[in-house]
Amino acid sequence: MTTSVSVIEPDITKLLDHLAGQPVLAHRLGGARHQWSAREIGDGNVNLVYAVRGPAGAVCVKQAPPYVRAAGPSWPLTPERVLFEHRALVEHRRHAPRYVPEPLHVDPAEHLLTVEYLEGHTVMRVGLAAGASYPHFAEQAARYLAHTLFFTSDLALPAGDKRELASFFETNTAMCQIMEDMVFTEIFLPHPRNRWTSPELDKDVKALQGDTELKLAVARLKQRYLTSRAALLHGDLHTGSIMVSASSVGVIDQEFACYGPMGFDLGTLLAHLLIAYFAADAHATARSTQQNWLLTAVEQVWDDFRAHFTDLWRDHAGGDGYPPALFTGAAEAALEAERQRYLDDLFTETLGFCGAEIIRRVVGFARPIDFTTITDSTRRAHAERRALALARSLATAPTDYRTAADLIAAARAAEGIQRG
Amino acid sequence: MTTSVSVIEPDITKLLDHLAGQPVLAHRLGGARHQWSAREIGDGNVNLVYAVRGPAGAVCVKQAPPYVRAAGPSWPLTPERVLFEHRALVEHRRHAPRYVPEPLHVDPAEHLLTVEYLEGHTVMRVGLAAGASYPHFAEQAARYLAHTLFFTSDLALPAGDKRELASFFETNTAMCQIMEDMVFTEIFLPHPRNRWTSPELDKDVKALQGDTELKLAVARLKQRYLTSRAALLHGDLHTGSIMVSASSVGVIDQEFACYGPMGFDLGTLLAHLLIAYFAADAHATARSTQQNWLLTAVEQVWDDFRAHFTDLWRDHAGGDGYPPALFTGAAEAALEAERQRYLDDLFTETLGFCGAEIIRRVVGFARPIDFTTITDSTRRAHAERRALALARSLATAPTDYRTAADLIAAARAAEGIQRG
Repeated sequence: MTTSVSVIEPDITKLLDHLAGQPVLAHRLGGARHQWSAREIGDGNVNLVYAVRGPAGAVCVKQAPPYVRAAGPSWPLTPERVLFEHRALVEHRRHAPRYVPEPLHVDPAEHLLTVEYLEGHTVMRVGLAAGASYPHFAEQAARYLAHTLFFTSDLALPAGDKRELASFFETNTAMCQIMEDMVFTEIFLPHPRNRWTSPELDKDVKALQGDTELKLAVARLKQRYLTSRAALLHGDLHTGSIMVSASSVGVIDQEFACYGPMGFDLGTLLAHLLIAYFAADAHATARSTQQNWLLTAVEQVWDDFRAHFTDLWRDHAGGDGYPPALFTGAAEAALEAERQRYLDDLFTETLGFCGAEIIRRVVGFARPIDFTTITDSTRRAHAERRALALARSLATAPTDYRTAADLIAAARAAEGIQRG
Repeated sequence: MTTSVSVIEPDITKLLDHLAGQPVLAHRLGGARHQWSAREIGDGNVNLVYAVRGPAGAVCVKQAPPYVRAAGPSWPLTPERVLFEHRALVEHRRHAPRYVPEPLHVDPAEHLLTVEYLEGHTVMRVGLAAGASYPHFAEQAARYLAHTLFFTSDLALPAGDKRELASFFETNTAMCQIMEDMVFTEIFLPHPRNRWTSPELDKDVKALQGDTELKLAVARLKQRYLTSRAALLHGDLHTGSIMVSASSVGVIDQEFACYGPMGFDLGTLLAHLLIAYFAADAHATARSTQQNWLLTAVEQVWDDFRAHFTDLWRDHAGGDGYPPALFTGAAEAALEAERQRYLDDLFTETLGFCGAEIIRRVVGFARPIDFTTITDSTRRAHAERRALALARSLATAPTDYRTAADLIAAARAAEGIQRG
């Protein structure tokens, strides 16, 4: 009990009161309130997160303060975000239950969301930064993406059901605004939130902010984020939103969920695998095994996603998009060709968002530990510069890449920059 | 009083009670209730519409029965549609007050919407079918389109304001479903609602329903209608939704309003000008003056729209899309080039929707009087076949047309088919 006593602060007391007051949560923890211990485990930028353990089991409780956790009260943010996270968990879990933790309870008044605690899992980014590989990750991530995106799209949902969902998530304005500002805008301006490896990348950042072709390409991607309502996105699918164990994957932190372009989720995930790839090389000890795995994972996430998504479209086309009744008999082959064209376009969109995400993680407010834990700033800057070079190419010329194999070949080539 | 007595039925009594109960409406009519007369003036497919006149003035009252007016109670439809029409009037009038009648009152319980009565105006389609031309129409329609579309888009609105509006209109599901079914789907299937000039066009309709390339092109347009949230559309901008006088234009019947692709409104309007063009030739008396004016109008609607929209974007870019702060100094020229690229893409989208709209008005449930008043079925079939030929080309190969001049040249060429 000593450890738990030491962390009991006013927030924790309130938290345990809350759990004790909800029979379904109290039952899951088991025993009596005094047997429960809570610890803050959040390392995200936005919320406070507690693991609470009792004799029978554990739960994870997220508390949304009325501001951005990483910035403090000077950056206010609506605590209503837990409602969107809760609904996204419900919807995504309906379609991908193996990869989405069970939402157990939401308290709209206190802005508390309680979800299944993922035993034995760690934050993927933390594992990656420590040099780990996850051989089963790509296959599972591809399935998660295919199921959550396909089944919330107009290819699977009747238009009325999709419109009802889209209407709800359309009001997740404050969280979307963060993306609109931080991914697509601020980094190209002399904004006070921007940070980068200075002075090593000062010239690169100056060049970036004067790169009209890149700024136009990213503005087009922003326009797509603002106007496309293709599927219910996770909305922030980086490796810090993914819990992993040796055999399983759990996707968390859905507070940025919105209807948007599918390539935003896909591109964000690929971006963070590539960030880990470029960062791996700059650490003191060589990580070629991890690097090889990361590129294999990039290729497999896309290729498996594409295969799953195509299969789902063939077998579960219950939506209003591309009515199957119009493409029977000899026209079936034409619809199949259209599916492949659709996925080619989605790959292009994915690469664009991938490039934009890499760039804002080198220059923006939310720099990932993959980079920031590289203590040698010269090596860090080299890694970041390589990532920027690939990212610029992806954002401005995504159609130069036809396949995921092209993408990882370009990553290898970029990784070789300045190594001779 | 004899005429008004003869039309007083239970609905009218209720209607006048309603008006008498709303001081703002009673005041506008003036005098006492017994001095008011009402007559049904609706000729649309969806609602009942009454003009009510009193000593001081007139109002227009729309009543939404819980079914489609043209089909009767066998086709139920939510009467909530008046709420969407009311909000669309409010939003569009904010940006284009000269072309949108003033909404005066909405009664959500009785599903009654009262708007300004447009004195001295007639339904444009009725005028067109009688051979009229409207020399000031194109300039005004272009301005209406530029203002309503630009100012409700992410180019003008902060993302939060746009998301709030989009969330509201996302629930206009039942009306959108009508478009999803009738414009993009039913006409390609042996659906009981389909009608066409038979037997003359039987083979054409059969060919159309087996035309895989066309069906794919239209399915792609449907996908765009389902997933694009670019601007607040009128949603049904045909010539029956437009009131005209010699000098002015008033756009009515906003019950299909939704966030969607801008090309849907633009394409629908061009489609109905082209329908009038093809129909004009088939009437007993030659209408070459009207035909020449119609093609000029097609060209001017697009060209003026493009010019206005570009100007608005240059001068009123208050939205989150394409942040002007990113494109200052030397980058301004690149942003200007991007505006032109954007409008090129919008022209392509417009032509696609234009083609789809023409086709569904030849083969579908809602055939316009432009065609149906042509009593000679051979001449009617010829006119419709020419319209279909152009429409197929627009839907399947919109990028073959670079300018509105290309479009009207193609219309002239199609119009010559089978005339030798």
